[in-house]
Amino acid sequence: MRFGLGGIVAEEIVIRADDVTEYVGQLAKYGAYGDTGVWRPAYSVAWLEAQHHVAGWCRDLGLTTRWDEVGNVWGRLEGFESGKVIVTGSHIDSQCPGGRFDGALGVIAGVLALKALSEQFGRPRRTIEVVSFCQEEASRFPTADMWGSRAVTGAIEPEDSDIILDYDGISIGAAMHSVGLDPAKVTEAARDDIDTFIELHIEQGPFLEHEDVPVGIVRGITGRRRFLVKLVGREDHAGACPMDVRHDPMAGAAEIILGVINTAHRMGRPAVTTVGRISANPNAPSIVPKDVRFTIDARHPLAEDGDLLYERHEALMNEVASRRNLDLEYVVGSSRSPRHSDPALVELLSDIMRQDGVHTPIMYSVGGHDAARMAQIAPMVMIFVRSQGGRSHTSEEYTTSEDAAVGIRALANSLYRLAY
Amino acid sequence: MRFGLGGIVAEEIVIRADDVTEYVGQLAKYGAYGDTGVWRPAYSVAWLEAQHHVAGWCRDLGLTTRWDEVGNVWGRLEGFESGKVIVTGSHIDSQCPGGRFDGALGVIAGVLALKALSEQFGRPRRTIEVVSFCQEEASRFPTADMWGSRAVTGAIEPEDSDIILDYDGISIGAAMHSVGLDPAKVTEAARDDIDTFIELHIEQGPFLEHEDVPVGIVRGITGRRRFLVKLVGREDHAGACPMDVRHDPMAGAAEIILGVINTAHRMGRPAVTTVGRISANPNAPSIVPKDVRFTIDARHPLAEDGDLLYERHEALMNEVASRRNLDLEYVVGSSRSPRHSDPALVELLSDIMRQDGVHTPIMYSVGGHDAARMAQIAPMVMIFVRSQGGRSHTSEEYTTSEDAAVGIRALANSLYRLAY
Repeated sequence: MRFGLGGIVAEEIVIRADDVTEYVGQLAKYGAYGDTGVWRPAYSVAWLEAQHHVAGWCRDLGLTTRWDEVGNVWGRLEGFESGKVIVTGSHIDSQCPGGRFDGALGVIAGVLALKALSEQFGRPRRTIEVVSFCQEEASRFPTADMWGSRAVTGAIEPEDSDIILDYDGISIGAAMHSVGLDPAKVTEAARDDIDTFIELHIEQGPFLEHEDVPVGIVRGITGRRRFLVKLVGREDHAGACPMDVRHDPMAGAAEIILGVINTAHRMGRPAVTTVGRISANPNAPSIVPKDVRFTIDARHPLAEDGDLLYERHEALMNEVASRRNLDLEYVVGSSRSPRHSDPALVELLSDIMRQDGVHTPIMYSVGGHDAARMAQIAPMVMIFVRSQGGRSHTSEEYTTSEDAAVGIRALANSLYRLAY
Repeated sequence: MRFGLGGIVAEEIVIRADDVTEYVGQLAKYGAYGDTGVWRPAYSVAWLEAQHHVAGWCRDLGLTTRWDEVGNVWGRLEGFESGKVIVTGSHIDSQCPGGRFDGALGVIAGVLALKALSEQFGRPRRTIEVVSFCQEEASRFPTADMWGSRAVTGAIEPEDSDIILDYDGISIGAAMHSVGLDPAKVTEAARDDIDTFIELHIEQGPFLEHEDVPVGIVRGITGRRRFLVKLVGREDHAGACPMDVRHDPMAGAAEIILGVINTAHRMGRPAVTTVGRISANPNAPSIVPKDVRFTIDARHPLAEDGDLLYERHEALMNEVASRRNLDLEYVVGSSRSPRHSDPALVELLSDIMRQDGVHTPIMYSVGGHDAARMAQIAPMVMIFVRSQGGRSHTSEEYTTSEDAAVGIRALANSLYRLAY
């Protein structure tokens, strides 16, 4: 990686908050949900129109614009030197419903950064591309998160297109066909010519709000393990079976849920553990359940601490089930190792923000991102922008255009330093 | 209430275990479910055929047999004195699926007791009736439990027929029409000429099994309060929101569930509390729920202790919600006061069992029964028969014919003492 001469300081690259508002508003029309949300799952009509809109922005900037085989949209600002390229971007698919900022702001950031750079400084030395990944969320296809960035890293196969189904049973291959893509060609989306990936994204948590700063630099992306747990006891009559002889899986589940949440809380930031999904069988008020199922989603950005968190959860599950005479069945539904940002890129961004005079914390991402997948083929860093109340994955998420402009200026400066 | 001369001891009334097996087997054919279960909700075809079968038994015994306006079947052994009548019986509708003994055994007990008495001793002094109530369970119509016995006590109105719906949206009035009953006439099922009600029922709990005795005498039927609870917190991203700033209703629900179960356990028998039903919204593994709903079913046969149990549950809910900064909404879904058996009838049965030489505990029923409704119009007592493993409301419930015969002999003796 070569750095530019560094003669440009942040103030000299102009990113207007009004432009951010305008671009966010344009994209939010596709799949608009209520006053502030979007409902834009991958390969839906709303999604297709939104990707076309992004492609339109790229063409308007004079970028070489193309759709790859999986449906990612790329805009390319050709450098006058050959060699590997620098990429920035994020995704435009959403939760159902989701907000207008998660993902979309990173795509808009790339477009506005390239707009500012090309307008102010012309053609770069090194090639820069902006990407709008087709699918990061698992909102339609529950097992296909990061589908777009995984395709770029060569991690998906044509067979996956038939296996992966949405909640209505439609295969992701059929969904791709419906928008004119050929799932047999997904492997052709893989690239080996990228050597830097920078993603701007809303924080999705309240850390920056608490720190009272607009922007943070991500030093690493969390590891995560998800347990699918089933506790089996004995179904009994709610009135007639005395408390002292019950094998009540609801009591065991409650003790485990309370325990794993406490464990993460006591380990302290950035450990997090969530039980978001639960069901009882037969789920009747007057019957002690036969079994209770729930998920445990545990995350930590450091491998060693994450392993400790997961081990404690497993130990607690086993202890409670054994003491309460319940049968415990659990599987690891998914497990992702933490990914670290490139230290030189973290330092580059820190230096830019110091010059900009903005205090900028270096932090972990405890959500997953396309950048975590891109880290497998290229040095990576992320820029986080403050999200009001730390909200995300909801139509109520909100980021001010002023905060976004600070982040986008940091992105543009980093691209300037790397490519000009 | 007048007692018979008491010259007859239990051994002299013959109830054959083989007859119990035969009658249970005959009735279990209607709505048979698997090898041992039944699926016989009120006003279904299986239910209709089973009620006709019971009516056939009554006619075969020479009893005056009639269907009342709500679908209860009555068999009457006319006494030679006029005056109020003695009634025994239970219900033949079932959980879905349920077992062959819950309810059905009490109807069979009445039929076999009247068979033995009329065959051995002829016409009684006082009139005795056996009743097969049409609906005790809420398995089809969730808000219509004890429909048959409530009709007899005058506690239902014609309007109820339109309001009460089954899980498919069919009104109970339409269901009655489908089996030839006129819901406009339900009030005509009310009676004011009953002065004793005796119900034999399987225990539905393991107390008798633990005591190693076939039969118990019920001194009272539990009170019950059911809370429908909703805890509202703040939906957040499972990864990005730190533990220490969450308003997680799942954590609060787990603490309350664990707490109310512990409260009942620590108060000791016969207090029971069950959380059988739970749901999270939006119920996604990667989202801290916005709200969690669950039921608390708390029961105690003593009014004062029950009130203490309910108060402790409410205090815990309020404390946890307040400390965890969650919004608590709960309603009392249903609340039933305890019902006490008639002390003279309890003593009568105790005396019979002493003569029979069988140790017979005097116990509480922690399930609801038709007898609790009949207690509103007549002195009442129940006879419990041991249930294997304390199981009920499952196709696996099982009671031996030998145990049942001991209970039916006690019933027959009590009817003899009261009516001959």
